[in-house]
Amino acid sequence: MSDARQIKIGLYIVGTGMHIGSWRLPQAQADASIDVGFYKKIAQEAERGLFDAAFIADSLAVDENSHSQILNRFDPTVLITAIAGATSHIGVVATASTTYNEPYNLARQFASVDIISGGRAGWNVVTTADATGLTALNFSRKEHLLHDDRYKIAEEFIDVVKGLWDSWEEDAFIRNKETGEFYNPEKVHLLNYEGEFFQVRGPLNIGRTPQGHPVLFQAGSSNPGQELAARTAEVVFSHKKSFEEAKDFYKELKGRMSKYGRREDELLILQGISPIIGRTEAEAAEKAALLDSTVIQEQALRFLSGYVGNVDLTAYSLDTPASQVAWREVNSIQSDFDRIQKIIREEDLTIGELYSKISNVSSDDSLRGTPEQVADTLTYWFENGAADGFIFVPPALPDSLTDFVELVVPILQERGIYRTEYDSTTLRGHLGLSVPVNRYAKQPLPASQI
Amino acid sequence: MSDARQIKIGLYIVGTGMHIGSWRLPQAQADASIDVGFYKKIAQEAERGLFDAAFIADSLAVDENSHSQILNRFDPTVLITAIAGATSHIGVVATASTTYNEPYNLARQFASVDIISGGRAGWNVVTTADATGLTALNFSRKEHLLHDDRYKIAEEFIDVVKGLWDSWEEDAFIRNKETGEFYNPEKVHLLNYEGEFFQVRGPLNIGRTPQGHPVLFQAGSSNPGQELAARTAEVVFSHKKSFEEAKDFYKELKGRMSKYGRREDELLILQGISPIIGRTEAEAAEKAALLDSTVIQEQALRFLSGYVGNVDLTAYSLDTPASQVAWREVNSIQSDFDRIQKIIREEDLTIGELYSKISNVSSDDSLRGTPEQVADTLTYWFENGAADGFIFVPPALPDSLTDFVELVVPILQERGIYRTEYDSTTLRGHLGLSVPVNRYAKQPLPASQI
Repeated sequence: MSDARQIKIGLYIVGTGMHIGSWRLPQAQADASIDVGFYKKIAQEAERGLFDAAFIADSLAVDENSHSQILNRFDPTVLITAIAGATSHIGVVATASTTYNEPYNLARQFASVDIISGGRAGWNVVTTADATGLTALNFSRKEHLLHDDRYKIAEEFIDVVKGLWDSWEEDAFIRNKETGEFYNPEKVHLLNYEGEFFQVRGPLNIGRTPQGHPVLFQAGSSNPGQELAARTAEVVFSHKKSFEEAKDFYKELKGRMSKYGRREDELLILQGISPIIGRTEAEAAEKAALLDSTVIQEQALRFLSGYVGNVDLTAYSLDTPASQVAWREVNSIQSDFDRIQKIIREEDLTIGELYSKISNVSSDDSLRGTPEQVADTLTYWFENGAADGFIFVPPALPDSLTDFVELVVPILQERGIYRTEYDSTTLRGHLGLSVPVNRYAKQPLPASQI
Repeated sequence: MSDARQIKIGLYIVGTGMHIGSWRLPQAQADASIDVGFYKKIAQEAERGLFDAAFIADSLAVDENSHSQILNRFDPTVLITAIAGATSHIGVVATASTTYNEPYNLARQFASVDIISGGRAGWNVVTTADATGLTALNFSRKEHLLHDDRYKIAEEFIDVVKGLWDSWEEDAFIRNKETGEFYNPEKVHLLNYEGEFFQVRGPLNIGRTPQGHPVLFQAGSSNPGQELAARTAEVVFSHKKSFEEAKDFYKELKGRMSKYGRREDELLILQGISPIIGRTEAEAAEKAALLDSTVIQEQALRFLSGYVGNVDLTAYSLDTPASQVAWREVNSIQSDFDRIQKIIREEDLTIGELYSKISNVSSDDSLRGTPEQVADTLTYWFENGAADGFIFVPPALPDSLTDFVELVVPILQERGIYRTEYDSTTLRGHLGLSVPVNRYAKQPLPASQI
């Protein structure tokens, strides 16, 4: 194992890719989003590229204005279990909501995956963005909770889940056939959590997992989102568009950790990237143009409408200046809304250009180009305080991934900033995060006192 | 495919087996209950025996008085996903509670497993028995809901889940790359369910599954339990101890179906069996004795205490007549409590004998013996209106299963009442249950009108 700091990479998988028209490419498997064989193959390809993790996002409602491939998607926890069975090293991370689950159920599902995968599970904690308000209506509620309330609940939820994960000490199970002692009752602990939103006695009905507990991912970058991350997250997925923004965010978030008694290296910040790679710049531009040619104007406008809330953009054309739209603040991803408003204020874009910019693909010039150019950008961000690694959000699968694995990974390896083989079998091991100590475990005595 | 009616068999898997001391046998893998490799191997063995399904029970709290192997158990939905990945034909059935889940989450998890497994998923619907009241305390509630209320909720819950499973018609997804049409908006349907307990808009964010929807299992045999089963269940798991009781139950439950517009063959009744098989009667008796020798008196009394509620039996000895205990009615599995009280009233048993009787193993004489004797009992029940098949609840794994697969299955096959190979790849196919028609689908015109 190299001691040098190394780039961490997670793969964000959603069907044929994040580009809204990617399923229309000639080589695309149009039903990929609901084919477990496709997900397994893609995760294996990411494993060939020595990625740290495969990452599954989620939503809890059908939004017909959104990306068509998420109309019909697998439950993420079920999906990562299936992926784990088809891979051997790569971490498997599923999104699950603190607003629409019971912490007891969630704690045991992720603990189960962690054991079943041999220590490769991660939980991406979300409070659920719901610009359209449709999610609440699927869960016997009249309206979606407000942003700040969701974060208060999330805080308790995570405390409960982490508490339940400590229910059993690592050596609680004895299983002595001679004496008939199956476990040591002194090594199982009640949680007795009494919060404002949750009251949970415990113990969890599943023991300590290979990683101590699954790795906690988060993506919130609003103020409460950052506070929660600073207190509890182990990996944060961000998607800043410029190096300066990314660097500021990196510094700001890590700066919030000390007041929670945490060291900066206990949290990794990964920036979302969607590179379009060609062997030449011209080839990359051609790929980007081909992708953009798959976009249907009406679908792009509906997507943008859904993304920013209940503003109906379909009455406009893609050429309308974005500043002419009467945007309304929505109860969704706060940081996204703010970011978009900032872009509209500062840049003179049409709705079509805005779409291209926020749809996260084929818009970032520094990530469209040759393998060397892409590697240079990643290296620069990594080495200059903007990222500990990246979430690779592929424009079009499997091609974007294969390009990256075959063309960019070798360059990063040559530079000594990316692994050349897995030196661990757990997600924590890949990420260089230590196994958390059970709160009830007696610390070993320091050598001097033995 | 033989047209003759054939015995259906599901395998109930819990660690090394249902016998409380099974983990202490010399050949037992004591940590089986938390080893996914063990579950995969056992499911593969059941598949070798051409079983219809592997079945995972559940609980949502740690009851230290209970079977030690369920202190530490996998989430059933996660577990059946892992099992599905290691098998190709056998159905995979997971228990999940209508009292402690959201129907939207549950509907999509089971739909996901059905797609991932290629049409092999089943949902065992339970309202959660909670004699100790500990479960409620893990879910931010002060006390467990009463039996009748649980069933009212379950009824709505199932209606919501089945409604969500009809959200998308089978041919809703078009995925036409040329035109850019991904789906047909006329083939996706809102549920708009407005019940007393649940209000769910839909649609579900996952499409129609290979089986139309997962197979619905139930085990309730109380009056509300039977009504719910008559209305909604496709397989019922019962555990009557005598042929007469089983026959009465079979007739009664099937008799309740017509008022819900259902035919009797739309519901299969499987009786729980725990045979102990020897090549001779003496060998079977020896195996039973060996199993019983693993029981520790205090553990048996604690198990019995936990099973029947808050009666503390540990002050008694195994020799105390059961009629001397002051039993108290509990808010748990109603039919179990009634059954036990009946046994106590009618039979002059000690507490030890009662334990042996209700612990479901090594107590039923007709299922302890040679392969022929066991096959004779199953055949008799099957051919005389007491069962459509059986849930095999193995006393000790893997031995009980291997004995059954190698010694009993061939006899049943010879008699023409058990399959000699799988003639289907779905659980519905194995069970002879038809694929439900989506409520929104236009029926094809009868040939005469075309």
